[in-house]
Amino acid sequence: MKEFNIHPISRTIEAAIKDKIDNLTKPKGSLGRLEEIAEQICLIQQTLNPTLRQPHNVLFAGDHGIIEEGVSVSPKEVTWQQLSHFSKGGAGINFLCDQHGFKLILVDAGVDYDIPSGHGIVDMKVGRGTRNFLHGPAMTEEELTLCIERGSKTVEEIHGATGCNIISFGEMGSGNTSPSAVWMHLFTGIPLEKCIGAGAGLDNAGIRHKYEVLSKAVANYDGADTVEAKIAWFGGFEMVMAIGGMLKAAELGMTIIVDGFIMTSVMLAASKLYPAVMEYAVFGHQGDESGHKQMLEAMGARALLHLDLRLGEGSGAVCAYPIIESAVRMINRMDSFQSVNVTKYF
Amino acid sequence: MKEFNIHPISRTIEAAIKDKIDNLTKPKGSLGRLEEIAEQICLIQQTLNPTLRQPHNVLFAGDHGIIEEGVSVSPKEVTWQQLSHFSKGGAGINFLCDQHGFKLILVDAGVDYDIPSGHGIVDMKVGRGTRNFLHGPAMTEEELTLCIERGSKTVEEIHGATGCNIISFGEMGSGNTSPSAVWMHLFTGIPLEKCIGAGAGLDNAGIRHKYEVLSKAVANYDGADTVEAKIAWFGGFEMVMAIGGMLKAAELGMTIIVDGFIMTSVMLAASKLYPAVMEYAVFGHQGDESGHKQMLEAMGARALLHLDLRLGEGSGAVCAYPIIESAVRMINRMDSFQSVNVTKYF
Repeated sequence: MKEFNIHPISRTIEAAIKDKIDNLTKPKGSLGRLEEIAEQICLIQQTLNPTLRQPHNVLFAGDHGIIEEGVSVSPKEVTWQQLSHFSKGGAGINFLCDQHGFKLILVDAGVDYDIPSGHGIVDMKVGRGTRNFLHGPAMTEEELTLCIERGSKTVEEIHGATGCNIISFGEMGSGNTSPSAVWMHLFTGIPLEKCIGAGAGLDNAGIRHKYEVLSKAVANYDGADTVEAKIAWFGGFEMVMAIGGMLKAAELGMTIIVDGFIMTSVMLAASKLYPAVMEYAVFGHQGDESGHKQMLEAMGARALLHLDLRLGEGSGAVCAYPIIESAVRMINRMDSFQSVNVTKYF
Repeated sequence: MKEFNIHPISRTIEAAIKDKIDNLTKPKGSLGRLEEIAEQICLIQQTLNPTLRQPHNVLFAGDHGIIEEGVSVSPKEVTWQQLSHFSKGGAGINFLCDQHGFKLILVDAGVDYDIPSGHGIVDMKVGRGTRNFLHGPAMTEEELTLCIERGSKTVEEIHGATGCNIISFGEMGSGNTSPSAVWMHLFTGIPLEKCIGAGAGLDNAGIRHKYEVLSKAVANYDGADTVEAKIAWFGGFEMVMAIGGMLKAAELGMTIIVDGFIMTSVMLAASKLYPAVMEYAVFGHQGDESGHKQMLEAMGARALLHLDLRLGEGSGAVCAYPIIESAVRMINRMDSFQSVNVTKYF
């Protein structure tokens, strides 16, 4: 697999950052998580005057063989239909990207449909959906490698062409809460039943069935005891491409905004390959997909928003952007007690 | 006291709103709180195509006699210093208002300082700070009436001049978590000790002292058993002016974004006068001031953001604005399943 050169972030300027924040005209600590995010962005960018440039949301789409087992209420055709819909505007992710000035990049990572060209959807197709992981690996080692490379290349091109330094990743893939739940289970050790939720809208019987299928799939696992092998056995093309994207973004010193349940499991898998990737991550939204809270806790992460979103597409990450922007404005634009006539208060 | 004509909101179009939201191209309910806020704004505006126009944050400042009792770490002069600082830009509320397109209106409701004119601070001064409510009413009935009228007039003028239909209220007033805690106690019945927190930064001994002072003040209460009398006895000029502002905003059919602990207690007091005002309220932020969570629960309210802010100034309300804007964009801009080629999924 492609190698990445991800630096753990230097803490040399940490004291200077804290000092700057503590001297802004407000009671110490009173801007709460804005202060925490400002510190993180300063550390990522190694500056006391951070900037956010050219935000992008890269949405990878792919289909999943496991959907044959009845683990999702969304039929498979919704994947390509929605991908095509995104390209025309009018979907959830479109109005959010417009609102917050994000460029939306749509990537066919492995949809089971011939997406016509000329609609601005980037063709990175690795296959027409993954294989059903109940009976064997969802993708081959070569397909895994291709996904990582293509995700990485996508981010490299965006960064090179625009100077983008903050990026979120979204996904569209009917059935992809199933591989996400399995990754969560395998990479945190949390019991599988706590990792499974309703996805796009399963009822209780559906959730039980999903548990039985995934439980069998995990029991049938016959690959090597390595992170790569587990990623390939259960993963989706869109998910592994997002791993490649995240790792490249961290290598380039970009801030990564992590979306909901699926993208959290992608960041989790990425961090099992390169732990330092987590230092570049801001978690946008904690959704109500069962287990998301526990996965975040296991990763030592705390999301910015709790809005009961469960749309995917990168929506929770893009929604969180104004909070990150507020943090950056705070540290750049607020006066210090030294510069104005205000008595320092606690 | 001035009377307001606040209509309980008609629910006639509720089914049509829900139907429109449920047919947008997303799994039903998957935009969570955006759907809930969109519905509320549609109801307030009685339309399926709501708009947000000319957002304003009205910041009332006032001083508090109770500060003599050592209930706050912020010295009194911080009130006028910060009010003056807001008028020059460079404070917390300034960068947030700039970011989200809010016009900031600064009002001297009763600061204990002669604010020089010509700095864009509206002079509505009712007195040079309230009296110490440990020994008697903080303000007279006449002062209460003046505050309500002036708050109301401020909102009426903004609405008339700009067409503003969404408004938040902020405050600056050293010591004003004390009156807020007492109002919370009196108007919800929650024990006083659960209503008291650190304010701008008290330590544990300071919090104990604050409890003892407020406890004595409540025991000394000698006014009538009416909401108005309790508001006047403990309230601040800036807080009562905000009550007048909120009541007028509701009368005019505007959406009110409620800030943190202090403004929540203001909305609570307003709702004891006119319960229907709550239907116009969106709660922006739940802070870490002890008791805020319980006060919101007692009011049946749930804040949009949880960012550990405790700055006041309207900061938590303004920070929440992009979420409200997302909700409005959602209902106006997303395609319905009927209008595009996407299979309806759950």
